[in-house]
Amino acid sequence: MPKISEEAKAERRERILAGARRCFADHGYEGATVARLEAATGLSRGAIFNWFGSKEDLFLELATRDNNRINAIWLEQGLEAAVRAILEEDREWLGVYLGVAHRLRTDAEFRRRWDERQPKEQQQAMIARMKDEQSSGTLRADLEPKEIGNFLGVVFDGLAVQLAAGYDPPVDVVLGLLRDALAPVTGRTRSRTPS
Amino acid sequence: MPKISEEAKAERRERILAGARRCFADHGYEGATVARLEAATGLSRGAIFNWFGSKEDLFLELATRDNNRINAIWLEQGLEAAVRAILEEDREWLGVYLGVAHRLRTDAEFRRRWDERQPKEQQQAMIARMKDEQSSGTLRADLEPKEIGNFLGVVFDGLAVQLAAGYDPPVDVVLGLLRDALAPVTGRTRSRTPS
Repeated sequence: MPKISEEAKAERRERILAGARRCFADHGYEGATVARLEAATGLSRGAIFNWFGSKEDLFLELATRDNNRINAIWLEQGLEAAVRAILEEDREWLGVYLGVAHRLRTDAEFRRRWDERQPKEQQQAMIARMKDEQSSGTLRADLEPKEIGNFLGVVFDGLAVQLAAGYDPPVDVVLGLLRDALAPVTGRTRSRTPS
Repeated sequence: MPKISEEAKAERRERILAGARRCFADHGYEGATVARLEAATGLSRGAIFNWFGSKEDLFLELATRDNNRINAIWLEQGLEAAVRAILEEDREWLGVYLGVAHRLRTDAEFRRRWDERQPKEQQQAMIARMKDEQSSGTLRADLEPKEIGNFLGVVFDGLAVQLAAGYDPPVDVVLGLLRDALAPVTGRTRSRTPS
């Protein structure tokens, strides 16, 4: 094999991912056959699977990247920017993502591979950011950062459903209500009854 | 054809729907072939499609019923009961529902049929209930009931994703934060910047 520069390698990797994303979006996960992946990337199956071992690898790489990108925006620019970034996701792609979600429940190996791709450092940075906000009084401190993160995960997934289904989620209302839900607890009763 | 009582008719209809739900849950929407629908219901294709014109009709009937059931629980027992009812939905079925969501965007006829099945009376009853709560001071009054309903729709869809994906959404946290988000606005800044 001829030598290939690091830059050319990275370029090829991105080309494969971009084509695969388009292919999944157009045909769904099941419909994204090897032949269609070849057509979408302009590369042979040998070239594609030299970089990504399987169709599942391609999907996991794309899904993980999206998650990490949204999380990075949250860390760097805050919640509103993260919500607005979700709204700009490709609706076809979100539909594929949702159509595959059930595999996280039904396919233990898929779930394991998904979990191991969630970057620990990013998760820790998000927890640390929320703790800072709790200390400085801009985020309610009566809930664990992890609990708040889980709640936001529910809302983010809900936005993905509405986008995939062609609705325009009421982003200003969602952001306003999130702000109120997460505001420091002063002069109101705690939201949780002690367990 | 022999005469069949109304009761027997209703019983057969329910039998078909229960079998179809199981069939969709087990094999996905695409995988629910006519042969599998026959096996799941114990009835011939003739009998099935005599009651429901197509597989799409079966799906729409099941999806609409679920939505209406959750809404009815909300109307009769309140938000917490509705959220808890979502948590008891069949996770396999939720996965199918999410996998089909993109058709609402991509298939105009499917969307039209979906929309026409949303019962106007129930929607109006939900708006009226929220208006009552706003008047009596138990629900924030600075947002339209429709806006609040749209926000709750996002959260409900998000819960469906997490359930389908095998996670256990933090229901007490979600309920607590929803309560705070929707509490009457007293002594806090309005959540929406004037547009």
